[in-house]
Amino acid sequence: MENLSFSVPLDVPEERKEDFIKNMNEITKGTGRLMLFAGDQKVEHLNDDFYGENIPIDDSQPEHLFRVASIAKIGVFATQLGLIARYGEKYPNVPYLVKINSKTNLTPYEIRDPVSLAWYSFEDVVDFKEKSGLKIYGIGYTVYLGSEFEHLMLKEAASLVHAAHSEGMVAVLWMYPKGKAIKNEHDPHLIAGAAGVANCLGADFVKVKVPIINGKKSAEALREAVLAAGNTGVLCEGGKKENPEEFLRELYEQIHIGGTRGNGTGRNIHQNTIEDAVRMANAIYAITIENKTVDEALTILRESPV
Amino acid sequence: MENLSFSVPLDVPEERKEDFIKNMNEITKGTGRLMLFAGDQKVEHLNDDFYGENIPIDDSQPEHLFRVASIAKIGVFATQLGLIARYGEKYPNVPYLVKINSKTNLTPYEIRDPVSLAWYSFEDVVDFKEKSGLKIYGIGYTVYLGSEFEHLMLKEAASLVHAAHSEGMVAVLWMYPKGKAIKNEHDPHLIAGAAGVANCLGADFVKVKVPIINGKKSAEALREAVLAAGNTGVLCEGGKKENPEEFLRELYEQIHIGGTRGNGTGRNIHQNTIEDAVRMANAIYAITIENKTVDEALTILRESPV
Amino acid sequence: MENLSFSVPLDVPEERKEDFIKNMNEITKGTGRLMLFAGDQKVEHLNDDFYGENIPIDDSQPEHLFRVASIAKIGVFATQLGLIARYGEKYPNVPYLVKINSKTNLTPYEIRDPVSLAWYSFEDVVDFKEKSGLKIYGIGYTVYLGSEFEHLMLKEAASLVHAAHSEGMVAVLWMYPKGKAIKNEHDPHLIAGAAGVANCLGADFVKVKVPIINGKKSAEALREAVLAAGNTGVLCEGGKKENPEEFLRELYEQIHIGGTRGNGTGRNIHQNTIEDAVRMANAIYAITIENKTVDEALTILRESPV
Amino acid sequence: MENLSFSVPLDVPEERKEDFIKNMNEITKGTGRLMLFAGDQKVEHLNDDFYGENIPIDDSQPEHLFRVASIAKIGVFATQLGLIARYGEKYPNVPYLVKINSKTNLTPYEIRDPVSLAWYSFEDVVDFKEKSGLKIYGIGYTVYLGSEFEHLMLKEAASLVHAAHSEGMVAVLWMYPKGKAIKNEHDPHLIAGAAGVANCLGADFVKVKVPIINGKKSAEALREAVLAAGNTGVLCEGGKKENPEEFLRELYEQIHIGGTRGNGTGRNIHQNTIEDAVRMANAIYAITIENKTVDEALTILRESPV
Amino acid sequence: MENLSFSVPLDVPEERKEDFIKNMNEITKGTGRLMLFAGDQKVEHLNDDFYGENIPIDDSQPEHLFRVASIAKIGVFATQLGLIARYGEKYPNVPYLVKINSKTNLTPYEIRDPVSLAWYSFEDVVDFKEKSGLKIYGIGYTVYLGSEFEHLMLKEAASLVHAAHSEGMVAVLWMYPKGKAIKNEHDPHLIAGAAGVANCLGADFVKVKVPIINGKKSAEALREAVLAAGNTGVLCEGGKKENPEEFLRELYEQIHIGGTRGNGTGRNIHQNTIEDAVRMANAIYAITIENKTVDEALTILRESPV
Repeated sequence: MENLSFSVPLDVPEERKEDFIKNMNEITKGTGRLMLFAGDQKVEHLNDDFYGENIPIDDSQPEHLFRVASIAKIGVFATQLGLIARYGEKYPNVPYLVKINSKTNLTPYEIRDPVSLAWYSFEDVVDFKEKSGLKIYGIGYTVYLGSEFEHLMLKEAASLVHAAHSEGMVAVLWMYPKGKAIKNEHDPHLIAGAAGVANCLGADFVKVKVPIINGKKSAEALREAVLAAGNTGVLCEGGKKENPEEFLRELYEQIHIGGTRGNGTGRNIHQNTIEDAVRMANAIYAITIENKTVDEALTILRESPV
Repeated sequence: MENLSFSVPLDVPEERKEDFIKNMNEITKGTGRLMLFAGDQKVEHLNDDFYGENIPIDDSQPEHLFRVASIAKIGVFATQLGLIARYGEKYPNVPYLVKINSKTNLTPYEIRDPVSLAWYSFEDVVDFKEKSGLKIYGIGYTVYLGSEFEHLMLKEAASLVHAAHSEGMVAVLWMYPKGKAIKNEHDPHLIAGAAGVANCLGADFVKVKVPIINGKKSAEALREAVLAAGNTGVLCEGGKKENPEEFLRELYEQIHIGGTRGNGTGRNIHQNTIEDAVRMANAIYAITIENKTVDEALTILRESPV
Repeated sequence: MENLSFSVPLDVPEERKEDFIKNMNEITKGTGRLMLFAGDQKVEHLNDDFYGENIPIDDSQPEHLFRVASIAKIGVFATQLGLIARYGEKYPNVPYLVKINSKTNLTPYEIRDPVSLAWYSFEDVVDFKEKSGLKIYGIGYTVYLGSEFEHLMLKEAASLVHAAHSEGMVAVLWMYPKGKAIKNEHDPHLIAGAAGVANCLGADFVKVKVPIINGKKSAEALREAVLAAGNTGVLCEGGKKENPEEFLRELYEQIHIGGTRGNGTGRNIHQNTIEDAVRMANAIYAITIENKTVDEALTILRESPV
Repeated sequence: MENLSFSVPLDVPEERKEDFIKNMNEITKGTGRLMLFAGDQKVEHLNDDFYGENIPIDDSQPEHLFRVASIAKIGVFATQLGLIARYGEKYPNVPYLVKINSKTNLTPYEIRDPVSLAWYSFEDVVDFKEKSGLKIYGIGYTVYLGSEFEHLMLKEAASLVHAAHSEGMVAVLWMYPKGKAIKNEHDPHLIAGAAGVANCLGADFVKVKVPIINGKKSAEALREAVLAAGNTGVLCEGGKKENPEEFLRELYEQIHIGGTRGNGTGRNIHQNTIEDAVRMANAIYAITIENKTVDEALTILRESPV
Repeated sequence: MENLSFSVPLDVPEERKEDFIKNMNEITKGTGRLMLFAGDQKVEHLNDDFYGENIPIDDSQPEHLFRVASIAKIGVFATQLGLIARYGEKYPNVPYLVKINSKTNLTPYEIRDPVSLAWYSFEDVVDFKEKSGLKIYGIGYTVYLGSEFEHLMLKEAASLVHAAHSEGMVAVLWMYPKGKAIKNEHDPHLIAGAAGVANCLGADFVKVKVPIINGKKSAEALREAVLAAGNTGVLCEGGKKENPEEFLRELYEQIHIGGTRGNGTGRNIHQNTIEDAVRMANAIYAITIENKTVDEALTILRESPV
């Protein structure tokens, strides 16, 4: 096989290898790195991320996410199939990734440990992809390790990754240890463990939390996770909106110090006016895909016309 | 595609688009607004809504609902398949929407968080529609966000919306945050979150509770939900029976101030003699579909002969 | 369609309508009223109803039920498929109704709220009916409203009623609000609610508890339930064995004052010697089906030769 | 049909009746009585029954059970499919009954009420029977009445009995009221109730506990259960190892006073050297099948050469 | 059949017997003994076993396991399908065993008793085996006896062993009594019970904990388990990393005193540099398969060039 920046898992059957390589190259632009624009928060965080103080009114409508995804440079836009179905006709050029499971943040762990099950069968996704003609390159799924319901999600995750590969599609796992049993979600060793589980589940990319040591995010501490993840690419979640310069610097360090292979960013992009959102996405893309420096990315952030 | 007052979701396959547009136009009379006559309370509230002080004896028999639905102007009559099966032959002209799940109000949340599962497979609904020849335009399903069993209902809702669209049928979701974890079901921000989830689930319409601020219903406060729902039309539940004039005024404001695209009304219609029920439905229809003022609707309420 | 004493639900497909009408006419003898001989207590109450003080030894063997069912006048004998399979060859003339779910009375509600699931798929029932050649006219299913597991039973009940109708068979629901959340199972308003749910589930008949007001059974109080049940026929459960005269008088009043369309009687029939059991069944039949007075029924009870 | 010592249930289809009669005659030697050698304790009681003080070393290996079953006179040897698969090639002449569910005794009821689910689908059993060519005459299943999970086991039991009959195979149920809700597992009335449930489930034989009154086993007290079981044959469990003479006397009385139709004995047979085990089995067989007296059986126990 | 060092279970169909014998001979090198290199800990123990003090950096990447498995002498490398899929193309010569279920160690038993469900259907495994062309000789599955969820795992284990045999593949069970109800996981009698259950489940090999008596591992005490396991081969788990000499001595005694038929070793192999890991594996192999003494194995450990 040609020299690739990623590995083709062996559960991609021979007749789908070309598809898989094409899909990976499309979303990573041939770099093996993924700029994932995360847009599943309308379920995960309800309207908290989209409306309120310091959030521009642009973000109050779901279509904002599609506008950003269609104008900005991104690898893939990850969101629910239902949402894609409602806006896809108007935004056919967006590269999509179907996030198959989602839950709200309404139930505290004392009442119920986190559990999020697949909303659709994988066959539904393939059928939708074929009938809609949209560019759906892969699927996403969240596993809450340590939850009482971990076993249900591990089972679905393993089966879905396998099913995705059987169709030549890319599989991304959100691996989040959460629930009553989890004391510190930002523990580097725990994050590394979660990244390793994703590799065992066969994932192509794994989205993890950023390690925090002594109250500070640590790119250095990501190395353990990157090693543990093996040939599964590690993406850090973007998390709450931050100062853009700080955010870009952290991203740069995650890639160049920590060894991650991309990012999964939502709020830091979409909690902006359309112009700012596109500029921010482009700056993130510059660092992730175009190998730009923080300063170069900042220039894009400040100057790029939309 | 022609200029429509609603969007055709992309999980409606090409060969079903015409059906979907026809179904939507039938139930919204080409306006994109829906007057949904809600008749699922015989399960949801048992006999509380149908018998007792201040409820006319007309309402004590289930057939009352069908009489109203067949005489009054409505968009669609939503109730259980079993009930439709028992009266449908006598009322073939009614536009139906099959409410697929229902639960009673007997179990307090401390004993069991609310959970309501599909009574039928979607295939049963399609089969019934075809064999009965009834005008079944869509399906309805309730999701109790924040319940311990949220994940079961999100899964069923997503799959059912998708299945409905695959058949060219309309999908309406009742999105109600309820259960031990929910402090205020009338919180505008929470309602907006629920409306946004419906959009992510792919729903065509979402029925929500009316926001209450400082003890007063607020049409203004609905705007956040209408924005969050995107191209999913927001309907407010009718709730307990009120003074008709007040009810119509609220409805008018929900549409013209809040931006909703219809209503889902049960008790305010059927807790009346057949004559009053029909007049009330017609008045609601006038505001929702015929774009009448409150005064015009009140004239209908008071004068329209049955 | 001809003038019937019952309605043919619309989920009975065209090609099964004749079967359904025939089945209904067979078990109601063309009256629309049902005399249901309930024989599922060997599971529901274990041996409590069949052995002990004041119970004749005749009742200690399950075959007693079949003897009664084959000699007496009844509409239908309701019991488990397994029991029918064990005695059916010897009693091929009995009109059967397969009670699909059953549970014992061993587990108190504090340990587990009542839950009773289908023992067989509907396909098993149809297959048994065809292969055995027995006269199986319908199915029965119990729903415990208000139980933590209500949702499981509502789902099965709805699907089974629909399946029965699809085959032209009659569907009878036992609707019993029970469990930790239920304070008074004999509350007329609650019973009416349960009857209304049966109508929404599409049932042809619903078996309910007898309303009790101030410690006394009330036929009058049944009216609310009969109204709420609409075109679903209400049957009162027979309950514990009573003085036969009192029982027959209550039954008469349930029908002629309360408006019920039959009865579901077990212990008041089978907790007798074979002769007395047959006479009691015939007396019940006389009131229910033959429109006899209480006095006429009492004559049958006392004199009819077996 | 010919005059049989057992009844052919009507869910045995016409084309399988001959098979069923043959199977029953094989395992009851034409007597309608069953000598069931119970060998499922390696799961149910782990190694407690096979190793330790007073247990000969012969019993420490699972093959001991097969040696006994192949040399001794028995009706049927009941054990797990997996175990049969591991030794069946060497012991092809043994008459087998597949015990489909099993659980260990490790979890106290306060942690989890007893629940034991089918290890295999019925189709697996039939497939194994056909491919292996072994003499598999029937299936066995345990129901823990009164457990929180009773409903799961009732459902599986009913379906499996029905499936067995559909294939012309014999169905034996172990009916044991157990769990937090059960105060006295040896209550004759409770045992009778359990036996009656087995009849309703369609079982050909039911294995029950021995009634104990005032601390003493009572054959007399079995009569209620035998009546309640109707045409389902009652077998008493053998229980803990006892003095052989006492055991045989009890067995004789169970059959001749209590009216049981056989026995289900494990420990009293296999907790012996191979010679003693075979002699004990033969003595049990003599009473059960060959209608011998206790004294005759004791002679066999003491003298029969292996 | 030829004289084999293992038994062919009878649920291996005739046409698969040759495959089964070949598979067993491949992984046991014709000895009937299995050297299983256990590599499922990246899920079971997260990153605890792979990164930290005293663990060489070689072990921080999952590929380390594959490097060891491909260079060292082993019987079979057991790990998750997903992990095999990610590295299999580069390591096609490794003999694989797919460990079908796995869980993390994050949830304490007070929150949830251990439960680990199959990540894939057996059909997925067969399909992967065929499409990948990898040497997949068998499957592995863990059962936590005594857990509240024991019944779910017993069911899956039984079905998977049966399915594996139906395809001529080898089945290995990890039998671990664990959970709130288990006081001493190292109790020899409990271990023997677990080994016996594996035999009843039809397993070819069973991996158990090492018995500990008075705080000391006891090879002698394994005898009970080896007897109880019958013709299912017993493997002891390797457990925490120990002094290699001690480990090898224990292994020798397990086989030659305890009567085990191999070992399942993970950490004692992979928590080493690649050179040391290979040497350790080879030393273990020497004792297990090549019938070497401890001293001979120690020579291999110290001198064998990689």
